[in-house]
Amino acid sequence: MVRPIVKVTGAIRDERGLQTPWDHRYAHRTKRMGSSAVRELLKFTEQPDIISFAGGLPAPEVFPIERFAEACQKVLRDYGAQALQYGPTEGYLPLREQIARHTARYGINVNPENILITSGSQQALDLIGKVFINRGDRILVESPTYLGALQAWNAYGAEYVAVPSDKQGMITDALEEALRYGPKFIYVLPNFQNPTGVTLSLERRYQLVELANRFGVPIIEDDPYGQLRYEGEHLPSIVVVDGQYRGNHDRCYRGNVIYLSTFSKILAPGLRLGWVVAPPEVIRKMVEAKQGEDLHTATFNQLVAHEVSKGGFLDEHVKVIRQVYRQRRDVMLAAMDRYFPSEVDWTHPEGGLFLWGTMPEYLDAKEVLKDALEQKVAFVPGESFYPGGGGHNTMRLNFSNATPEKIEEGIYRLGNVIRAKMQELAPA
Amino acid sequence: MVRPIVKVTGAIRDERGLQTPWDHRYAHRTKRMGSSAVRELLKFTEQPDIISFAGGLPAPEVFPIERFAEACQKVLRDYGAQALQYGPTEGYLPLREQIARHTARYGINVNPENILITSGSQQALDLIGKVFINRGDRILVESPTYLGALQAWNAYGAEYVAVPSDKQGMITDALEEALRYGPKFIYVLPNFQNPTGVTLSLERRYQLVELANRFGVPIIEDDPYGQLRYEGEHLPSIVVVDGQYRGNHDRCYRGNVIYLSTFSKILAPGLRLGWVVAPPEVIRKMVEAKQGEDLHTATFNQLVAHEVSKGGFLDEHVKVIRQVYRQRRDVMLAAMDRYFPSEVDWTHPEGGLFLWGTMPEYLDAKEVLKDALEQKVAFVPGESFYPGGGGHNTMRLNFSNATPEKIEEGIYRLGNVIRAKMQELAPA
Repeated sequence: MVRPIVKVTGAIRDERGLQTPWDHRYAHRTKRMGSSAVRELLKFTEQPDIISFAGGLPAPEVFPIERFAEACQKVLRDYGAQALQYGPTEGYLPLREQIARHTARYGINVNPENILITSGSQQALDLIGKVFINRGDRILVESPTYLGALQAWNAYGAEYVAVPSDKQGMITDALEEALRYGPKFIYVLPNFQNPTGVTLSLERRYQLVELANRFGVPIIEDDPYGQLRYEGEHLPSIVVVDGQYRGNHDRCYRGNVIYLSTFSKILAPGLRLGWVVAPPEVIRKMVEAKQGEDLHTATFNQLVAHEVSKGGFLDEHVKVIRQVYRQRRDVMLAAMDRYFPSEVDWTHPEGGLFLWGTMPEYLDAKEVLKDALEQKVAFVPGESFYPGGGGHNTMRLNFSNATPEKIEEGIYRLGNVIRAKMQELAPA
Repeated sequence: MVRPIVKVTGAIRDERGLQTPWDHRYAHRTKRMGSSAVRELLKFTEQPDIISFAGGLPAPEVFPIERFAEACQKVLRDYGAQALQYGPTEGYLPLREQIARHTARYGINVNPENILITSGSQQALDLIGKVFINRGDRILVESPTYLGALQAWNAYGAEYVAVPSDKQGMITDALEEALRYGPKFIYVLPNFQNPTGVTLSLERRYQLVELANRFGVPIIEDDPYGQLRYEGEHLPSIVVVDGQYRGNHDRCYRGNVIYLSTFSKILAPGLRLGWVVAPPEVIRKMVEAKQGEDLHTATFNQLVAHEVSKGGFLDEHVKVIRQVYRQRRDVMLAAMDRYFPSEVDWTHPEGGLFLWGTMPEYLDAKEVLKDALEQKVAFVPGESFYPGGGGHNTMRLNFSNATPEKIEEGIYRLGNVIRAKMQELAPA
């Protein structure tokens, strides 16, 4: 028997003027979340007539589309049933083996049990938050630092101890005092950092490891761009330096460093494939967290990435990317030399996707952006990368996504916008 | 200048006998996480000679592999640069539009702004936890209920109010008392529930909605199997019933129900594609949470799923799945009639992937499983699906993954195992 339908009018929540019954039920943590300014801006800059230096997007011209098409055919033909089925939370074993071999070339000797495949490196950051961060825990970060890490960890109630950086990376002389605040771990992007493009010098890598060990504080090394070096010598990973320092050969088993990387910048971000290298015990905890979060990363994508990367393809492909991005970086730096007022300072990244501009103190990058958007050119104001505030006059410029012609034109326009703003606002 | 390397021996944490520097740093919430018994068991049952009724895996025979291969080629040829690039957190707009049209056929009129694409339905559960659950919040669930929801929400400190169910689903007569415990929301799987296979009757759907509205408690409707009905009439979704009850035509804007579904059971779980239907304001909060969690769901997978589903393919494909699974269900039910002791009781699901067996009280399903594994047949003991404990003598049996021949053989073996255990343990 179907019960009669009783029409309720004037229910309590409508009297309170709430829009939906969900409105007053949000968890406390949502107050700390909020949408990323960078991501919101990305939407705005999707208009095709905007020259955008705002996102962190790879150049679509270098996506190996043909290779992907072949890999999809092969994977579906030979392993179709497996590729479309549920898979283990840890990730597809041949891909983890492939990553272990790849990682070993940089002096990090790992087994598949040290490796967890994540749904992009962003998920690795989130899982680290879930597994390690209690509300109120302090995380030691560079200032400025990667916004996505702050976004992931804000949801777990993290507080931040921010260590200033310069053109050699995190200022390790300021690290010792920061460590006295008892951070749970140190988060560092040693190579071509997002947002600044700066690389942590070898000397500071040793200082960082020495201080971290002296204070007993472990390190998260986030390395999405390490292979995208356009000049200079490869510097040893923090994992490697820590292993040397601690003298342990099984450093991935008792190690002080968790290492993160991704296929997003060397293959394609649209696959959402990243990985974590950590002691097996940490991997097990992260696997438990990942089970509850998305069961596992898409099986199909893992098999396709494995197939695409096979036979040395990835190494050859990275060379192509380096060539394209090196040129774009050089075009941007030359254009800035030509068109930017001499009062603006900027970094000269040896790799990666970004460089960092510092305008005179009396300029606000958010205001400059408004004028820039009118001239159809976009960048990200630097302020939101500073967890402790500051950086109102800084800007992040991406050089990987736009073509050299657009970079030249966009920097020309941006130079004019900054110059006009300076003339308007310069102190007498 | 490179600092000298100081070799530290006997560091504090080694004296304490800790294996890694991370060991004493885990967040409190990890104590509530733990690995899913079902997932751990899945590993064990990967051996090819085991007949497994344990997982919730679709039949690989029905994956439309050819159609996938064509879709991958088309997507990469026509939209390669977009498919491999970063995308919006909300999801690929044409896929959201496609889902909106699909959803509208079931009387749920929605726009793309009501829809968020998630990395599988599991991520939708996790995001709901992140956005709504404070530590100690009570969630009203059916008992037994879907283990993945408990796993997702345990991490956010949820407590549970468990309402018993029978062969008509959640016993709504027990719901009123449960609602006095002030749950944040009600979680229900109305169609061919995981784990029991039971469908919430029409009368109880109205009772559920009436009580939820009377107490002002919103509902999460989890519907991964709704389209996989093998007999009987489609019953209206809780969203639809709630809309009728509240008399609002814009029910997806001020609605009391969040609706979840997935491509995992109608297309392929290896893509990790699910979706949420909710008021736009809730979608916005979930988008913020998702940004910090994985930026967005894999673009490539969204474009491929959209391409595969086009032109009515999905409807035709679902018919094929229904036919295959109906046969497997019938084979399993007939075999149970033939081989199971009469003291065992089981559900007769009208759809979905699972049925539920109840053995005599004096049997423990975990002990039966040990014997069953010796006979190379696996199932999931029911206990872990009960958030408040109980169900030691229950079992979940999956009928979608094994072929009819294996089902027949597996049920024969399982019947013998149960019979032997009963003879061993039956009270005098």
